[in-house]
Amino acid sequence: MNAIIVTIGDELLIGQVVDTNAAWLGSKLTAAGINVSEMVSISDSPEHITSTLDRIIGTTDVVIMTGGLGPTKDDLTKETLVKYFGGHLVMNDEVLKKIEGFFKSRGREIIDSNRRQALVPDNCIVLTNNNGTAPGMWFTKDNTHVISIAGVPYEMKAIAEEQIIPRLHKAFNVPALMNKTIMTQGVPESYLAEMIKDWEKSLPDCMKLAYLPRPGIVRLRLTVAGKCAAEGEGMLSEQIVKLQDIISDHIYGFDELQIEEALGDVLKEKGFKLVTAESCTGGNIARMITSVPGSSAYFLGSVIAYSNEVKIDKLGVKVSSLDEFGSVSKEIVEEMVSGILQKFNADVAVATSGIAGPGGGSNEKPVGTVWIAVATKERIYSKKFLFGGNRDRNIEQSSIMAISLLRKLILDIV
Amino acid sequence: MNAIIVTIGDELLIGQVVDTNAAWLGSKLTAAGINVSEMVSISDSPEHITSTLDRIIGTTDVVIMTGGLGPTKDDLTKETLVKYFGGHLVMNDEVLKKIEGFFKSRGREIIDSNRRQALVPDNCIVLTNNNGTAPGMWFTKDNTHVISIAGVPYEMKAIAEEQIIPRLHKAFNVPALMNKTIMTQGVPESYLAEMIKDWEKSLPDCMKLAYLPRPGIVRLRLTVAGKCAAEGEGMLSEQIVKLQDIISDHIYGFDELQIEEALGDVLKEKGFKLVTAESCTGGNIARMITSVPGSSAYFLGSVIAYSNEVKIDKLGVKVSSLDEFGSVSKEIVEEMVSGILQKFNADVAVATSGIAGPGGGSNEKPVGTVWIAVATKERIYSKKFLFGGNRDRNIEQSSIMAISLLRKLILDIV
Repeated sequence: MNAIIVTIGDELLIGQVVDTNAAWLGSKLTAAGINVSEMVSISDSPEHITSTLDRIIGTTDVVIMTGGLGPTKDDLTKETLVKYFGGHLVMNDEVLKKIEGFFKSRGREIIDSNRRQALVPDNCIVLTNNNGTAPGMWFTKDNTHVISIAGVPYEMKAIAEEQIIPRLHKAFNVPALMNKTIMTQGVPESYLAEMIKDWEKSLPDCMKLAYLPRPGIVRLRLTVAGKCAAEGEGMLSEQIVKLQDIISDHIYGFDELQIEEALGDVLKEKGFKLVTAESCTGGNIARMITSVPGSSAYFLGSVIAYSNEVKIDKLGVKVSSLDEFGSVSKEIVEEMVSGILQKFNADVAVATSGIAGPGGGSNEKPVGTVWIAVATKERIYSKKFLFGGNRDRNIEQSSIMAISLLRKLILDIV
Repeated sequence: MNAIIVTIGDELLIGQVVDTNAAWLGSKLTAAGINVSEMVSISDSPEHITSTLDRIIGTTDVVIMTGGLGPTKDDLTKETLVKYFGGHLVMNDEVLKKIEGFFKSRGREIIDSNRRQALVPDNCIVLTNNNGTAPGMWFTKDNTHVISIAGVPYEMKAIAEEQIIPRLHKAFNVPALMNKTIMTQGVPESYLAEMIKDWEKSLPDCMKLAYLPRPGIVRLRLTVAGKCAAEGEGMLSEQIVKLQDIISDHIYGFDELQIEEALGDVLKEKGFKLVTAESCTGGNIARMITSVPGSSAYFLGSVIAYSNEVKIDKLGVKVSSLDEFGSVSKEIVEEMVSGILQKFNADVAVATSGIAGPGGGSNEKPVGTVWIAVATKERIYSKKFLFGGNRDRNIEQSSIMAISLLRKLILDIV
């Protein structure tokens, strides 16, 4: 079963907006066992919408279009589609009630252009939009289903997940496709592949493995398709148990769990309070940790010590150590982590000191050199890394590594 | 003059990678006066590449393809294009030397698959890739230029900016299009439009204004096109002077300058040292400031005070104030900013305290309530905001506003 995704809007073509809708739909359709054969972005013009439909209808099973359904007059998609499929716009009382309720609940005045959004084609299935005012439309022609929905991401996502994908499954009897994503940290993709190559070779024919790397993280997506799908859950569990035997220490969670969420879970379980002392990461570790809702339950705060004065005054780093070893060193990062742990009266801490670049590197300590220390009240563990990328990349990789190392120290696997 | 952008790769179709290349090329081509009529993502298969070229060649002036030129065997674009345009692959000594130099400079072993990248079609212009190993190719057929370049963003960008856009300008004699982007902060798009509507109406016919909003920031792109392009520079300067008369306090810079860079410039000029005391922003302000290379010249460090204990112990916030006013209040945020300024012996400081959400809101202080204080040694300025979005958005908007307010305080325009 094949699908083509069509995203509509001049803002995409002039590069003002990056098309995240297409990627999101691509991942959801793929996960649902539907093959996406093409993504195309076109302008909000009747000619372009019509010529694109002429080209693709009959060549694919499903077309999902997003965008072009707003209340302003330059959004012409609805009018174009009604005409194209030979129907008429009729007022839909149920949709009108929904739109009126939407505005009432927000204490806002409803105007005519909003009411017009309740005009829907009489030759389509209307898809309810619970997060906005533009309903979706589902047409069928020449065995192709053409589905048009709003382009606002959180409206689009809800309609796709709650209505489109379940209906497609029913309509096409797509074999349920099961998958599980294993989140790993600390081993580069090529090394990981080497470590698990025997396991990978032994996978049953109807299971597939995909490597999805991201800075500092490698995701392993394990999929069961085709005739095995019925026993999918059992097969996935069985293989994951085998995989855990080989790389258990590198797996920190499943299904898009972020490393900062995984650390948060461990901290909550242990009842530990966390602090950070950051030099080269400049607050990025704290930002990642506090991006998790509810992190105030375990995160006390940080000292960002960009200058040596702050390292000395606020973290208790020794002047003699700075003189002897320099700020990017094992000694300093360990003094930083001990200092913050004690001064903030915390249970666990992490500290970083490195050369993010582009300036500041030397032969002995090139750009990308980063020392990370993690500590509990009982133990300090520190390690030097050479990330070597650009500034943003060095900060990002150092932060992920620091969070992962702290989690491993608490779990006693480092 | 029209262009179509074709991005190649299964990772795009399955939604593993968001297509930022197409958006980047779209913005660059638009800025160069070239109209992008379509963007399409297709799989890395000869059939799909061929059928897409069959469809679009002859309908557009330019096709820019990215991706599918890597050394691994599943990247089939080069072979497909040579065949399609009826040429042969020949070894290009210049390219080979470049590739060998590329590996030598990185101390890495060169293997056969890398050497094969120096095989280029004998019927195209070869575009040098200074940042990687796959050269670009420029074919011409039926008045359509078909240009294929690597998909790695920093390789793609360099080839496009240094070679493709200048060559297109020459080949098509595109009227040079001039533009200037004015960066504003602090006024929402609709209010800004109201403030400058008379100025906008008075713009000459060959000038165009586009509003490009982003959380917390509105960019105004002013373009001179067509017959006026020759006098473009003068016309832009003249209009910008007029615009500055109306909204000078809201303009912080030009041409994609980031607000944290603008603050950095002011700090360097004044020789001021900066510190931050962050509660709800959780380190994000420090992260933004330290994302600028060379920020160690003016950034000393921060205290992230997520818990009340840290606010009391490390920033000198009074227990009685916390009891009386609560942590999200004018009093607390002002005590935080005075505390950090003094304890870190800095010249300027910023502090935040708010409810980022999703939890922690009340009727009196709903999610999105944020107090921001900025201070020099002479003066404190504080203000309450109600951002009201989701957690990530609240943190982002608070951070941008805090940085902007500090810049305005130093410049004495708040």
